[in-house]
Amino acid sequence: MSKLLVRNFSISLDGFGAAPSQSLDNPLGVGGGSLHEWIFATRAGREMIGADGGDEGVDHSFFSNRGTNVGATIMGRNMFGPVRGPWGDVEWDGWWGEDPPFHHPVFVLTHYPRPPLEMQGGTTFHFVTDGFESAYDAAFAAAGDRDVLVGGGAETIRHYLRSGLIDDMHLAVVPILIGSGERLFEEGGPSSADYRCVEHVCSPAITHVRFSRTN
Amino acid sequence: MSKLLVRNFSISLDGFGAAPSQSLDNPLGVGGGSLHEWIFATRAGREMIGADGGDEGVDHSFFSNRGTNVGATIMGRNMFGPVRGPWGDVEWDGWWGEDPPFHHPVFVLTHYPRPPLEMQGGTTFHFVTDGFESAYDAAFAAAGDRDVLVGGGAETIRHYLRSGLIDDMHLAVVPILIGSGERLFEEGGPSSADYRCVEHVCSPAITHVRFSRTN
Repeated sequence: MSKLLVRNFSISLDGFGAAPSQSLDNPLGVGGGSLHEWIFATRAGREMIGADGGDEGVDHSFFSNRGTNVGATIMGRNMFGPVRGPWGDVEWDGWWGEDPPFHHPVFVLTHYPRPPLEMQGGTTFHFVTDGFESAYDAAFAAAGDRDVLVGGGAETIRHYLRSGLIDDMHLAVVPILIGSGERLFEEGGPSSADYRCVEHVCSPAITHVRFSRTN
Repeated sequence: MSKLLVRNFSISLDGFGAAPSQSLDNPLGVGGGSLHEWIFATRAGREMIGADGGDEGVDHSFFSNRGTNVGATIMGRNMFGPVRGPWGDVEWDGWWGEDPPFHHPVFVLTHYPRPPLEMQGGTTFHFVTDGFESAYDAAFAAAGDRDVLVGGGAETIRHYLRSGLIDDMHLAVVPILIGSGERLFEEGGPSSADYRCVEHVCSPAITHVRFSRTN
């Protein structure tokens, strides 16, 4: 049966998935950029940006596994880009260039309608204006018998957590302090009654924790 | 020069140092007990409670190091015991029995005065009613050229963090979700400008992260 997954979602040790003031220059907010440094130290992460080399340890294993059996991705608008408000004449087509690393349909949650955006390599961005549940249904329909990934950001993951829909959640805990920003786990979030740790392993850089829904 | 240290302070992956509803039966709150399970799996932790056996890996190394060069401890009242309000006729003398594992002066922050309580083995509990700074001064005076440990709980550590007084902070990140409780890092807490990670290592059970003040 298809699952709803979180993979490689980075949080700081103080719990933030992004720092304040996200923008074109600071996609993860001012001070949040180091949340993703571990990715670009891996061979898989470097391949994604067309670079050679990189580490092949546990961080690489997790990151290279990001698309395995995934048939669709859901993401919040802030993960798609820095544009706020109506799309207007902005030609923003994502952070990832002409051939985004998804290669499957991507459902972007937004309050502002926009026609689907077909990219190279099998990625099409669909802009969903009627809510999380609608994106969920569309993504599972598109994924067929494969899984659906919730890419982020924190707010988007939190919504699906609150609804009890996330089946499996892999977090990359980065040993930095950001101080403020967008929290993944707010007061009243899931507890051990909802999710249990099924994997806990670290590299010199970060700790990987994978939680699985208890029922 | 003497330092102000945090050692072995356990937080859940969602950032809580204790769960809600702390009491005699649930010193770390309902659902918070598993925050300390890793301690009682180590040889040093088992020795502390008079038991044999236990793991001798990295968790043991950190926990067995808890008192090295420490000349005094500061703790919040909730860490000393479950009693709230005035001390009254309660004969509470801590969680640790007649010979507490400190073997040095311990300064307990409280709003309610109480005479010092001398235990076996060199531990004396002093009850400090005039604030964090006063406890800080008294603890450093008592420690001489040794260091001072802030034992916890989260609120007590947060206060010294806000004042920029913690020099070195070792956290034990337990891969469990508690959902609510007392957070160590609230919005507006320290950032990478204040503390940098100087050690990051994990056992199968938990991740150890040590931060050092940047200036």
